[in-house]
Amino acid sequence: MTVKVVVNGVGTIGKRVAHAVKLQNDMKLIGISDVAATSWLRTVLEPEGPLFKTDLYASNKEGMQKMRDAGMYVHGLLEDLLASGQVDVVVDCTPAGIGAKNKPLYEKQGVKVVYQGGEKADVAPISFVTIANYEKALNAQAVRVVSCNTTSLVRTLHALDARFGIEEVFAVLVRRATDPWDEMSGPINAVVPETHIPSHQGPDLQTVMPHINIKTMACKVPSTLAHTHFITGKLRRKATSEEIKRAFEDAGRIILLKAANGYSATSRIIERYRDLCRPRYDMYEVAVWEESVTAEGNRFYWIHAVHSEGIVIPENIDAIRAVTGIETDKFKCIEKTNKSLGIK
Amino acid sequence: MTVKVVVNGVGTIGKRVAHAVKLQNDMKLIGISDVAATSWLRTVLEPEGPLFKTDLYASNKEGMQKMRDAGMYVHGLLEDLLASGQVDVVVDCTPAGIGAKNKPLYEKQGVKVVYQGGEKADVAPISFVTIANYEKALNAQAVRVVSCNTTSLVRTLHALDARFGIEEVFAVLVRRATDPWDEMSGPINAVVPETHIPSHQGPDLQTVMPHINIKTMACKVPSTLAHTHFITGKLRRKATSEEIKRAFEDAGRIILLKAANGYSATSRIIERYRDLCRPRYDMYEVAVWEESVTAEGNRFYWIHAVHSEGIVIPENIDAIRAVTGIETDKFKCIEKTNKSLGIK
Amino acid sequence: MTVKVVVNGVGTIGKRVAHAVKLQNDMKLIGISDVAATSWLRTVLEPEGPLFKTDLYASNKEGMQKMRDAGMYVHGLLEDLLASGQVDVVVDCTPAGIGAKNKPLYEKQGVKVVYQGGEKADVAPISFVTIANYEKALNAQAVRVVSCNTTSLVRTLHALDARFGIEEVFAVLVRRATDPWDEMSGPINAVVPETHIPSHQGPDLQTVMPHINIKTMACKVPSTLAHTHFITGKLRRKATSEEIKRAFEDAGRIILLKAANGYSATSRIIERYRDLCRPRYDMYEVAVWEESVTAEGNRFYWIHAVHSEGIVIPENIDAIRAVTGIETDKFKCIEKTNKSLGIK
Amino acid sequence: MTVKVVVNGVGTIGKRVAHAVKLQNDMKLIGISDVAATSWLRTVLEPEGPLFKTDLYASNKEGMQKMRDAGMYVHGLLEDLLASGQVDVVVDCTPAGIGAKNKPLYEKQGVKVVYQGGEKADVAPISFVTIANYEKALNAQAVRVVSCNTTSLVRTLHALDARFGIEEVFAVLVRRATDPWDEMSGPINAVVPETHIPSHQGPDLQTVMPHINIKTMACKVPSTLAHTHFITGKLRRKATSEEIKRAFEDAGRIILLKAANGYSATSRIIERYRDLCRPRYDMYEVAVWEESVTAEGNRFYWIHAVHSEGIVIPENIDAIRAVTGIETDKFKCIEKTNKSLGIK
Repeated sequence: MTVKVVVNGVGTIGKRVAHAVKLQNDMKLIGISDVAATSWLRTVLEPEGPLFKTDLYASNKEGMQKMRDAGMYVHGLLEDLLASGQVDVVVDCTPAGIGAKNKPLYEKQGVKVVYQGGEKADVAPISFVTIANYEKALNAQAVRVVSCNTTSLVRTLHALDARFGIEEVFAVLVRRATDPWDEMSGPINAVVPETHIPSHQGPDLQTVMPHINIKTMACKVPSTLAHTHFITGKLRRKATSEEIKRAFEDAGRIILLKAANGYSATSRIIERYRDLCRPRYDMYEVAVWEESVTAEGNRFYWIHAVHSEGIVIPENIDAIRAVTGIETDKFKCIEKTNKSLGIK
Repeated sequence: MTVKVVVNGVGTIGKRVAHAVKLQNDMKLIGISDVAATSWLRTVLEPEGPLFKTDLYASNKEGMQKMRDAGMYVHGLLEDLLASGQVDVVVDCTPAGIGAKNKPLYEKQGVKVVYQGGEKADVAPISFVTIANYEKALNAQAVRVVSCNTTSLVRTLHALDARFGIEEVFAVLVRRATDPWDEMSGPINAVVPETHIPSHQGPDLQTVMPHINIKTMACKVPSTLAHTHFITGKLRRKATSEEIKRAFEDAGRIILLKAANGYSATSRIIERYRDLCRPRYDMYEVAVWEESVTAEGNRFYWIHAVHSEGIVIPENIDAIRAVTGIETDKFKCIEKTNKSLGIK
Repeated sequence: MTVKVVVNGVGTIGKRVAHAVKLQNDMKLIGISDVAATSWLRTVLEPEGPLFKTDLYASNKEGMQKMRDAGMYVHGLLEDLLASGQVDVVVDCTPAGIGAKNKPLYEKQGVKVVYQGGEKADVAPISFVTIANYEKALNAQAVRVVSCNTTSLVRTLHALDARFGIEEVFAVLVRRATDPWDEMSGPINAVVPETHIPSHQGPDLQTVMPHINIKTMACKVPSTLAHTHFITGKLRRKATSEEIKRAFEDAGRIILLKAANGYSATSRIIERYRDLCRPRYDMYEVAVWEESVTAEGNRFYWIHAVHSEGIVIPENIDAIRAVTGIETDKFKCIEKTNKSLGIK
Repeated sequence: MTVKVVVNGVGTIGKRVAHAVKLQNDMKLIGISDVAATSWLRTVLEPEGPLFKTDLYASNKEGMQKMRDAGMYVHGLLEDLLASGQVDVVVDCTPAGIGAKNKPLYEKQGVKVVYQGGEKADVAPISFVTIANYEKALNAQAVRVVSCNTTSLVRTLHALDARFGIEEVFAVLVRRATDPWDEMSGPINAVVPETHIPSHQGPDLQTVMPHINIKTMACKVPSTLAHTHFITGKLRRKATSEEIKRAFEDAGRIILLKAANGYSATSRIIERYRDLCRPRYDMYEVAVWEESVTAEGNRFYWIHAVHSEGIVIPENIDAIRAVTGIETDKFKCIEKTNKSLGIK
């Protein structure tokens, strides 16, 4: 069976999800939908672009007019496409809050939906990270793939929780302030703390792993490449740093990189994925600095980097399989997605 | 009695300490000493500069030659000045590690010494932060004023420890990567973690407060203005956030600033000290974001900013009074220093 | 005679102008006016602030409410103050475009006005830079002090034009993207060109020096400290680089700094004014890199740095004297202003 | 005929050239050589890396030891490989100045050499940019591919010179300060001018186009993505902006992008090549901002962006064909290289 997918919102996440859908042999990209003739929309549709010949739809009438005015060929309204019954799943990658506004449309047409972490948790019955709750998402009407930061925390903490049990966690998130392309947002030379404590990422993690006792603090810094997380906490039993590393390695979608081998900064880690020629240098894995993994009795510490643009792409692909039920085995799903995206 | 002071090393800290010494009415700046005709050395000695007419010495012969070649008037070698018996205290503000090399010279001449936090703790018998151990430093032969990061942690943690007792502390230090003037060091667009955990600041704090159970992690980010610390831990008894704030306010050299009043980033806090027309906009206080002070049972959280260039200046002035014994009362010393520097 | 001055708009420029007015012995700061309780407005009015006890007015009723709600003491509406006849000159430092909206109010009350360079040239009959056209501004009803970039170009080009004549000029302006306090604007890691050529600074210069044949191009870069200009052109007669430097030195408000002496970057130049303990490190001078001043026949080249926050402050003070006619001699006016601000 | 190529120095340029050589069907990558186990060397040799199974050699004995100590398999010394007669061409991508030191070795073994622009011009008899002097390089013993900045200037100026003739050129180069991976170099918040005027890029262009009268000025800014050039000058005859754009389009390896289409900053242009999924997002073309192309009589202006990491890769491939003579027709060579690299 081939699942028919539409991606609504071709921004940082949407353009990647649409491309990844095209790489799956059990999915078909029926179309993409947007409201403006952005530079990236133009680019991905060029003959050299990864979405060349993909049908373009408009998410609303104003958007259709704007894109047509800009000389783009628009097939019609997303609404009409959905009504035609040709679509199984919409991956909604619209800006934060728009997904919730689109929800009545999706429900009316009875399509399955994958929302993104910019939406509030109640947009869908399940907040999703593959390793943590794939089974729960099977055949669900809608899921919400959680944010990049939360995804990285779930992947790593789930690995430890499954093996050792987790008593408590505290994390400081040093966030890249904006995406690499964005020339309008700052700061140029400042650190901007989130002064409300705890910050929202802890509760967001609990939408996936409600039993985890976690507090987070956060700031943004003048960098565009990756978030960096500083994590400490207590396991339910003692573990050595070697055991913790093994738990990470066994979990998948986590990579251990040594600063001593030259991976001494987020920029060096990103360069790795440029050198591997990953499309857009996307790092789908959480990158844990190997030397930072430290254990003292049942206390643990580590530092990891999160590529905010790339990390949720495999989860989006997995979520499509989950909600449609075309693959009921979590590990088979992970294997398919990983293989298609070059994840070891 | 007037204490005769020489500052050896006119860099980021030395130029400030020398200026601050000139503002004290119980001290006299006998001279400054250096090894190169840097732009800042030239500037502070200009007619408009704060050290105009201060006698310049050379810390070694090569330095004397270099500064003379650059057209500067050098009175002689620091060594000879110290041997002349005209100096009571040297404040050694040379680069990290040079202080230790200068130690035999200072010991030979029998002068008292104030070292900086770039030196290892064993350079002096006492690692010094005024509020924590002024009495211990009275009449000591030498003290080491600890680093900017450690000074900020001691000031805040001492305030809580004195009032509530501290059971444990964990802090993540998001460090400004270099000083504002430095155009050579990066990163431009990366976060650089210290992958050795715990980072050195925890043990450094214990040189002042050995009984505090603290662990730290750290990174540097592309900003030049201030370090930002994210702190959590447990008190020995419950306290409300209001009680914690009051402890900070009562301690002195800690200022509470509200993000809601426009102090929403390190840059906004620095602008405050520009607007107050502090010399070089130096923020001698630890700036705690008021909204971030959070209590849950006996657990606490807060975020503070540290002006790495300015915070240790009052401690250096206090340290001069301590080692010479010209002021035996800690709080009178603090009052004198604060008044001279415009600290409320 | 003492000129009574009000500053409307206490932002980056307004807070500096108000402070500078207080330093003049032929002016009196009657009040400042604003519409919001910003952090800087609060700060300058603190007991340690440079505008402590200055009367605060509101530029409109909503602003009055907002500032009162924030707990600030507001004396009344600017409109009523102006109507009372107590004010000779308003320095309008409101955001770009607001000055033009305020114009009818000022005209109705018959006060003299000094506008800023964010306004279009037609807001006032004269676009003003002291050295170029002080005499023309004498007793004018209103003048517009041109922008930081234009002021720097006028000062330097006027020096050369007066002595050698200028045939043509071409300049590339590498602009600091935003002010140091601003944590919201970017870019973090990009260069943003102004693709419309010529950029607006050339025509703006011609509002002061209409006979100069100049073209400019511009971009903004991720730095907050200073604009950097790269200038070339032709004189009407041959001049050596030494003659050009002498012309700059003789002109005033231009300083020559050597990269070889450690002034190798904008950050090093800014550090100079921190080291001189200028309030807010304001550099009122254009800083020309001495080594960059190059002559080939009648062609010239140089590079200079412009402190966007500080450079127009002396021109604002001069403009007050010009429009009120309290000082009819340009050079006496410059001398007074320079002395009050510490300009050599 | 298949040319046997070795790349000496696997850094920013070397790793790209080696990868590009593998994409040519008239070349064979015999090996790569280096002196240290850098993170990028490890990465490109991984199973997922673009140089998997490429033979690794050591450029000297110390390097061999170091790489072997790091657990890498080293086939032997580059020297011995060259002596074995298996290599036709060495592309020397070692750091600036090392190429010149390697020259005696290459000459002794009689291999052809392609040097990089970090070397002084006299390292090879010809400084090379394909469009300007491919024919001259045919069967030469060695050529030097000029720097990224110079390559971009030659490509664009050659296009205009060939069609209209060029009388004079002036350019300001706003340089990205360092490569994206580098976390050690700054500045973080400063502009660093080259105070020696003219800067070296003008004379460097004249090594390729000796008849062009050009002057350049330069600075570096806190960005890692691309150089930005601001160019003006005079043609020998009048041309409209449309004619200039057509000349650029006809020349090849120059792309015109509209800011109005969303390509409003260097970051937006780089994002384009991420979206096209170019390996490492390499932009081999000079990107001219279309709106900036301006003509006034015979005077011209434009702004372009240069991807410093990518732009010289096609020229290196062309240079291999030129020195070995396997393709004597410049345009056929360009076509082959372009096709292999995805250049339209």
